[in-house]
Amino acid sequence: MSDEAERERRVRESFARQGFMRHLGAKMTALGPGQCEIQVPYREEMTQQHGYFHAGVAAAIADSASGYAAYSLMPVNYSVLTVEYKINLVAPAAGERLIARARVVRSGKTLKICTADVFAVKEGKETLCATTLSTIMAMQDRSDRPAASR
Amino acid sequence: MSDEAERERRVRESFARQGFMRHLGAKMTALGPGQCEIQVPYREEMTQQHGYFHAGVAAAIADSASGYAAYSLMPVNYSVLTVEYKINLVAPAAGERLIARARVVRSGKTLKICTADVFAVKEGKETLCATTLSTIMAMQDRSDRPAASR
Amino acid sequence: MSDEAERERRVRESFARQGFMRHLGAKMTALGPGQCEIQVPYREEMTQQHGYFHAGVAAAIADSASGYAAYSLMPVNYSVLTVEYKINLVAPAAGERLIARARVVRSGKTLKICTADVFAVKEGKETLCATTLSTIMAMQDRSDRPAASR
Amino acid sequence: MSDEAERERRVRESFARQGFMRHLGAKMTALGPGQCEIQVPYREEMTQQHGYFHAGVAAAIADSASGYAAYSLMPVNYSVLTVEYKINLVAPAAGERLIARARVVRSGKTLKICTADVFAVKEGKETLCATTLSTIMAMQDRSDRPAASR
Repeated sequence: MSDEAERERRVRESFARQGFMRHLGAKMTALGPGQCEIQVPYREEMTQQHGYFHAGVAAAIADSASGYAAYSLMPVNYSVLTVEYKINLVAPAAGERLIARARVVRSGKTLKICTADVFAVKEGKETLCATTLSTIMAMQDRSDRPAASR
Repeated sequence: MSDEAERERRVRESFARQGFMRHLGAKMTALGPGQCEIQVPYREEMTQQHGYFHAGVAAAIADSASGYAAYSLMPVNYSVLTVEYKINLVAPAAGERLIARARVVRSGKTLKICTADVFAVKEGKETLCATTLSTIMAMQDRSDRPAASR
Repeated sequence: MSDEAERERRVRESFARQGFMRHLGAKMTALGPGQCEIQVPYREEMTQQHGYFHAGVAAAIADSASGYAAYSLMPVNYSVLTVEYKINLVAPAAGERLIARARVVRSGKTLKICTADVFAVKEGKETLCATTLSTIMAMQDRSDRPAASR
Repeated sequence: MSDEAERERRVRESFARQGFMRHLGAKMTALGPGQCEIQVPYREEMTQQHGYFHAGVAAAIADSASGYAAYSLMPVNYSVLTVEYKINLVAPAAGERLIARARVVRSGKTLKICTADVFAVKEGKETLCATTLSTIMAMQDRSDRPAASR
């Protein structure tokens, strides 16, 4: 298996272990070096008080997409951790599904900086509803296992 | 009913309408003027790839707690919207439950600035696992209904 | 004077009143609807401890460029205020000058969301050294005068 | 010299090398393990368009204070870098001087998370005008020299 194929396999296997993504009904719909897309369909379980998607859903898939965009660029003996992110919620997330598209804008050895845009899809039309700016950390010799302390 | 009691009733009623909070199993465990606490118990459905709470869970309850802390200070004919927030994930969220405690640090007429700390509780001991800084908007004459455009 | 020309005049006049931008030696080098560019040349007065541009210089011109990109879209009886921003410093700011390029990504009535990229120019080559995500507020009936409270 | 005294000497020496802090007229007025305070007096050179302190001044001293609060906890063969920060500007910065007070809220080996509050002092009374949340990185074997790439 090529190095790139191995990295993709590792990303998809990690995503599959996230119980929270399953609980959201989220699917990884695209993946490439430094890029990742995650979608989640609308259900009543995803809503805030007005019946739109809760900001927490947009944030969660933007975060996971950013983390995996970054992880796709890391050597195989590294694990991935989100250090922090900022999200701006720019329009109500109204529609049949949400799509988060993340990409790495700066790939340092230890830190990867990512942006993600989240779109609400309504009758096939995409509307930007959130945008994020994130800092992702590569942890050496961790095999996708967490750090006791960063 | 006093004005404060009316505001509390309105906050709790709004929280109850959030399908996403129910889907997380989240409870509002404290509420006061400019303050709000939300908790969520551990389940496999809440996890990231290492079995800890997913950052999206911490972010979601920090966001809702911040929004309701701000909402508790708004006149009755106002609705609440999260404009943006930043979250730093400072330690693995390992434990039986998460607690988000939010408070308003600056209460302007249109914008409220909030901070929230999220703690993981393990064998009764609280560990700070995330901290947020948020901007919340008061929308006049909205009755907790969303804006088509901000 | 056309409405657009009046808005441009107003932006440039406001920028000229910023003593801090003069103190930095900053120039507004481009301006259009929803877009603004500000540059600052290198001097010893701009440095951090390693002799590079201080992050504070990058942040200041990114903030001003974002504010004026937003202001360029506001009606004439409005004033502009930065509510908040986040900046990621992605590479050392080494070079003869810094260029901040800001654009509005979402233009609501009350809030404008902007991004800015800051480039260090060294021997004619631009390197991304910082990126920001900002929330800018339009204040009605303020004539570019500050609010006692937001 | 004790280890703590050596760390303090190193912080003050690094601060003294920041040409930009001198250009602002900034002074480090307090320093302890994980804590730092920086002040800057009012001058016309510090202003935005309404004659108040420019947000860039508040951000710059909050950033430097956060960086040095973090640096005060690092071993002697480490250098300090600001990865990113978010700032909320919560009130006009009107007064005779600004004071930034920073403290480390989480001290990991590689990353330190800091908050800073910035106060405007008017006739002896302090008003909170900005608050920040920052991520600071410790670079090993760098002797306060910058990284070509993080």
